Parts: sequence; C-alpha cells; structure tokens
Amino acid sequence: MKKQSIGVGLMGLGVVAGQVARVLTDKAAILAEQVGQPLVLRKVKVLAQDLERPQAKEMGPGILTTDDDEFFNEPDIDIVVEAIGGESPAYDYLKRAITSGKHVVTSNKEVIAKHGAELRALTEQYGVGLRYEASVGGGIPLVSPFQHDLVANRISGIYAIINGTTNYIFTRMAKEGVDFSAALKKAQELGYAEADPRNDIEGVDAAYKLAILASLAFKSTVRPEDIFHDGISRLDSRDFRYAQELGYAIKLLAIAKQNDKQIEARVHPVFIPDDSLLAEVDDVYNAVLVEGDLVGKVLFFGEGAGARPTSSAVVADIVASALKIINGIGTKSRWKLEPGKVIKPMSQIETRYYMRMNVADRHGVLSQISKVLGDHLISISSVIQKETNRREQTAEIVIMTHPAREAAMQESVEELQHLDVVRKVNNLVRVED
Amino acid sequence: MKKQSIGVGLMGLGVVAGQVARVLTDKAAILAEQVGQPLVLRKVKVLAQDLERPQAKEMGPGILTTDDDEFFNEPDIDIVVEAIGGESPAYDYLKRAITSGKHVVTSNKEVIAKHGAELRALTEQYGVGLRYEASVGGGIPLVSPFQHDLVANRISGIYAIINGTTNYIFTRMAKEGVDFSAALKKAQELGYAEADPRNDIEGVDAAYKLAILASLAFKSTVRPEDIFHDGISRLDSRDFRYAQELGYAIKLLAIAKQNDKQIEARVHPVFIPDDSLLAEVDDVYNAVLVEGDLVGKVLFFGEGAGARPTSSAVVADIVASALKIINGIGTKSRWKLEPGKVIKPMSQIETRYYMRMNVADRHGVLSQISKVLGDHLISISSVIQKETNRREQTAEIVIMTHPAREAAMQESVEELQHLDVVRKVNNLVRVED
Repeated sequence: MKKQSIGVGLMGLGVVAGQVARVLTDKAAILAEQVGQPLVLRKVKVLAQDLERPQAKEMGPGILTTDDDEFFNEPDIDIVVEAIGGESPAYDYLKRAITSGKHVVTSNKEVIAKHGAELRALTEQYGVGLRYEASVGGGIPLVSPFQHDLVANRISGIYAIINGTTNYIFTRMAKEGVDFSAALKKAQELGYAEADPRNDIEGVDAAYKLAILASLAFKSTVRPEDIFHDGISRLDSRDFRYAQELGYAIKLLAIAKQNDKQIEARVHPVFIPDDSLLAEVDDVYNAVLVEGDLVGKVLFFGEGAGARPTSSAVVADIVASALKIINGIGTKSRWKLEPGKVIKPMSQIETRYYMRMNVADRHGVLSQISKVLGDHLISISSVIQKETNRREQTAEIVIMTHPAREAAMQESVEELQHLDVVRKVNNLVRVED
Repeated sequence: MKKQSIGVGLMGLGVVAGQVARVLTDKAAILAEQVGQPLVLRKVKVLAQDLERPQAKEMGPGILTTDDDEFFNEPDIDIVVEAIGGESPAYDYLKRAITSGKHVVTSNKEVIAKHGAELRALTEQYGVGLRYEASVGGGIPLVSPFQHDLVANRISGIYAIINGTTNYIFTRMAKEGVDFSAALKKAQELGYAEADPRNDIEGVDAAYKLAILASLAFKSTVRPEDIFHDGISRLDSRDFRYAQELGYAIKLLAIAKQNDKQIEARVHPVFIPDDSLLAEVDDVYNAVLVEGDLVGKVLFFGEGAGARPTSSAVVADIVASALKIINGIGTKSRWKLEPGKVIKPMSQIETRYYMRMNVADRHGVLSQISKVLGDHLISISSVIQKETNRREQTAEIVIMTHPAREAAMQESVEELQHLDVVRKVNNLVRVED
C-alpha cells in the first residue's frame, strides 16, 4: 500500500525539539509540497516536567507521551527525531529506533562523536538512514558537504571555530581588553555560556564536533578520546594585546589534518594571522575552513547554535529521510570508510609557538633562553621585550619560534622554568599561519 | 540486467573538461568505492582542433569523436557531462542528451541561467536528472544547499561576490591605489581576465550566476534579463580611498531579495561596511551570503573558478547522478516552483547612496544641492569636502544619503548636473549596510 503521509516521532521538547515541532506545523504546507506527502508529527516523547510547558499544553493529549514503549510501539512513526542531547538515554533511544526499523535524525553531537560508527553499522544492518547535520554548526551545512559536494576531494585539513561560547569570550577579550572571568560572566548573562561552562571552555564540546567532522572528512573513525584538547581560561588579556601587535588574532581552533599515514586532531587556542578569514569570525558565529585537493579552500560560516538554526538542519534531515522513504530505496551509504589510520600523538605535531615569560631584567638572559631552545632544535623567529618592572627588576618578553616539535617545546618549557633568570613562563600558545 | 558500470560521455576537452577526465581516471578507484560501481569514460566529443591536445593524444582513438551522432548513439553512456560553455551548441546538446534519456551534468552558467526552466521541464518529462553545481562558484557548494540543506528556510536575501575577475580588479584598486585600467591589465596578464573582458566587467557573468541562485533560493524563474547589471569600469581609485575613509569597502555584489510579492535582483558596485565578512573576500575568491528565516546568515566561501575547483563540483554531480541510476529511482525533483512573483523594477529599489561630485568652491553650494535632493525626498547623512582646486576654484565633495528611491536619486542626479554650481557628478554608488 502506498503511504499517504510520513509520520514523525519527536524525542524531547526542549528548545531545539520545540522549535522543530513548530516548524513542522507552521511550514506544513511548503514541506508537504517539497516532500510530495505531508509530514505528520505523531508522537512526542517527553519527561513528566515537560508536560507543564506551554507548548505541550497546546499540543493536545494524544500526541504527548512520557512512556518509552508507547512511543516506540506507535506503528505510524517512520522517522524518529532525537533532540534530547547528552549520551544517555539518547544513545539507547537511537539504537532502539534503528532496530525498530525507523529512520533516525539527531542533533546530538555527543552520541554521534562517541558512537557514530556503531550507529552507522546498525543502520546498515537494518536498512534505515542516520542523519545528524544538526550535530555540528547549527544550520550551517557541514555534514552534507563531506557526504556529497566534496566527495571527489581528498581532504587534507579542517580548521574550525565550532564553539560559539568560547569564540564569544575571546571576542570580548580581544575587542574590550577584559579578562577571562569578566568575559565569561558576560557570556553567562547573555545565555551564551552555561552555569557550568566547563564543556565549552575546556574544549570538550569542540572536540566532539571535530570528531564528527574529521571522521567524515577523512572517512575514518576519529573518536573524542583521540583528540587533544586544551581550554581557553589560561589566556590573559595581555596575550590578546601582544597578539594584535604581532599581527595575529587568537581563536579556539579545532584542527584536523591527514597525510598518507596519520591523522592529527586537536582543539586548543591558536594564533592565526589577523588578516585571515577565520580571524574575522567574531562573537558566537562558527566557521569551518576545509582544504581539498581539487576544491582548494572552502569556508562555511554561520550561527553555530540556537534553536532556529539547529531546526533548519533537523528539518532538512527529516525531509531527506522522508524522500528516501517515499522513493523506496534503502539507505546504503555511499560514504565508505577508508582503511584505518594511526592518530598522530600530540607530542609529534609541529607548529610555531608564541611564548610569554617573565625574566630577570639583566644582560645575558636571552642567550640562556635561546641556548635551552637551541638544545631542543627550536629556533627563535622574534623576541619582543614588553613591560619592565623596575622595582622587581623583571621584564616580560614575548618569543615567537619557528616550527618546532611539540615534545621539544614542552621539554624546553620545563627546562626554562628551572633557569635562574626565568621567573615564570606565563603562557605558550600554538601558531597556525 | 544489473549494470556493472556507469558510462560517462564528456562533451568538450577544454580546461574544465580535461580536468574532469583526469579526475575520473586518477581517482577511479576511490570513486568506484563511493558509487559502488566503476565510472567509465566512454566517449569524449571534441572539435577537430582538440585532437592536437596532448591529453587527446594520450586518450587513444576509440574514445574521442568529433561526430555528434557517434557520441549520442553510444548506448553505454548513462551520464552526459557538458563542459563546452556558451549558449550554442551547448543548449542543443543538453536537450539532445535529455531527450535521449541520459542524465546530464553541466558547468554551463549561460545555458542554465537562460534555459534552466525549459531544461528542468524536459528532464521531468524524460525522467532523468539535471545537475549544475559547477555553474556557479566553482567547487563551492551553492546549488546543493538550496536544494537540500536549506529546504526548510524561506530565503529572504542573497549577497554574493560571484565574479573573480572583477573582485581581483577591485582588490588591486583598493589595496594598491591603482586605477581601473592598470588593474584590468594586471588581471589579464595573470589570466584572471579575458582579452575581451566585457562579460565580466559589465556584470553579465555575475547576472547569469545570480539568475541561477535566485531561481533556486526563491523557487522561481528569474531570468538574466530580469536582472539589472552595471559594470565596474566607472569606479575610480579615489572612490576606493574615500570609501576607506568612510569605513566602507567597494565590491561588485550580486544581490537578490524577496518579499511576499516581489523579487529584486541586481548586480552593481556597492559600498559595504569594511568590517563585514564580504568586505574581507579579496582577489579572485567568491563568497555568497544567504539569509534564511531559520538559519539566519550563512556564508559560503571559496575559489569561484578554475579547472580543479570546478571539476570538484562536476565530479560530485556525476557521482550523485550515478547513485540515482544505480538506486533505480527517477529524478522527480523535490524542488517545486512557487507561484510566479513580479520582478521589482530597478527604479523602485531603495538604498543609500554615495555620490562624488565637483562643485564650485564658494558659499551656498551645499544649500542648492541639498534643496534638489530634498525636493526628491532624499536626505543627506553626511557631506565631506575632499580636495580643493584653487586655480579652477572647484572642490570635490562626497555625499552619503539616507535610504532613497532609485528613481528619485536618478532624477536628482539629472537635475544636479544642470545646476550652475555643479561641475560634474563624478560617481554614484549604492550602499548596503
């Protein structure tokens, strides 16, 4: 029997799920036109406390359920949309939906980053689709370009600003000269940072998203635990001032590169040239720069979070799932994994470094420092003496190095801190030109 | 009988077609992996003079043909790739391919801009696909986002730098202070501008591309002749200097907007705030900013031309066509036209203006000018007196207006030129904030 409509089951009624429900209702006519059949919201799985939301009260009692079995036993659901977030119970829900033969759409970065490979395998076994465009970068097309538009390319690198919270904080620090805690407080007041902001400021959120992008770009399984991540709280307003003087911006970048043998993936604050396009990406905006052998550099920019942008991606995935169901084809992924590659250890990466340190204000200091660096085969590209504290007889200096190995740099810092003339190594930030 | 491979027929062996042929060969293994079957280049339709190309000689005699019938009668071609360019004979070739039941892929902006609606109707009649990602913006995904990723959005505006030649010329004029003809000469030396550069510098090329993007974004048929276009040659190096002083960059923008009743589409030089992202797009790069009701602002950036980026899009389209063929579904477009909208006449658009003029260097001049503008309900936002020529007793002034109607502005300029105190209205450039 030919279907007359496509049934959607929604899990969650938070800001994203609520907005998805609104789009399915408000744009029903135009979506039906594009799909060829109406998309009908059949069930919404909520928690007991969600029942008090104004939106829940508008929905009528037949649609809402707090019962898992009632939701999964509804026969007229073709597509399950998971917008709960977090690892558990979302991961179990997605598995249950797939093994029940439903196509699934999710905005859940944590589950896809941690369990994407298992879920993909399960969808192939059950002949259904798994779509997760909304899991990275809100409504910016990022998953789909790797799966379709860039399929002829060998991707060599990804350079991404994919955490709006930290980008907002860095923007305030750079433009207003405020320190980290003041910028964080502002972000929290505006709702850009959570009360417990650790996942954002420590780079965990960005590492989840990078795991998803790198897996797609390199046709490999890159897991969050493969990704080095370092937070933003150790950056000082004076680092931003010095960066500006040197012609750089500071951004929390998620970087992934591959060569023939190794994949490199890391999230940490980076100096980037201030005339680069990524340096212009301010506030809560996201941007992902992709380098491919044919396409060269392409960049995707937009709002990386928020209910409306995220719903744009979720609904596009629902439409794509519906079209697959109507056209009656299984979802044999065209997206094949390449043979496994080794993840490059962080100690082996090579980059330039910015180092800020307090040293004794006297002759011969620089020769001692450069000897330590030279012993580790690190050469200095420039040294700038910044402020001097006459009373304490110290000076602050900024060193920019030529490309060096991470391990050598870390060993040097260790040794420098034991030098008599070095009061403190205040900061070490990697540089990407 | 199940197919064992997908046959590709290529029309042309110029830079783009030649690169597509190379990618199909060099990346045969990985493309076969993604498609599930090999993509085999069966025939290449060339002109007699192409036979002398080194690449033609490498191909072997069986593949090349100068004969249309031989090409179209080859039974094992499933996908015809047209990379000849220009309206004729490409349009006829595409029609012949479609009516022969072949899926078609083209990089031809002129044919799609002028005849896209007819070709789409023909593909629906014959149940084949028409793909043209490479017709706009090289390898940057621009067609596909409108057809898939942004499908839940109502698109309100497109702001695009989609002609690399003119963007290169403006970049040189802005950064080096050279005049138009010197910048054009440089662009020609580097191969960025053709010997006859009119299509680029008069905005015709950008208008073709905007017709394609606006048709997709607004689900309408926007034809090149619906699009006002104005060239870049009347811009002077001093306009760039004044723009900089005022906090603006000058770009050749392709702009399309829609409201409930009207579509507005135009290509002309524009003042844009110098801290906007589009202002940072330099040299031959392209960028397209899209505004949607859900997604907000998204921007796509990359190399807008060149054989390799263009081949990235063409091969992605070949892969998509091949997957459709293998999955055995017709290509019923999910992309439905909305009821026709009226194109807004250029005279009715509203924008701010930059006006540069030479006037008599004496009292009362400004009151005469502002009276003319005021009579047309145009108010002045700022006036700056630039250089004074004491010998000729003239001064150059720059006026920025508040938003005004195009018709009123054009009438004002006409009247201003007849004022005794106005020597010349040197330039009038629209402003988008």
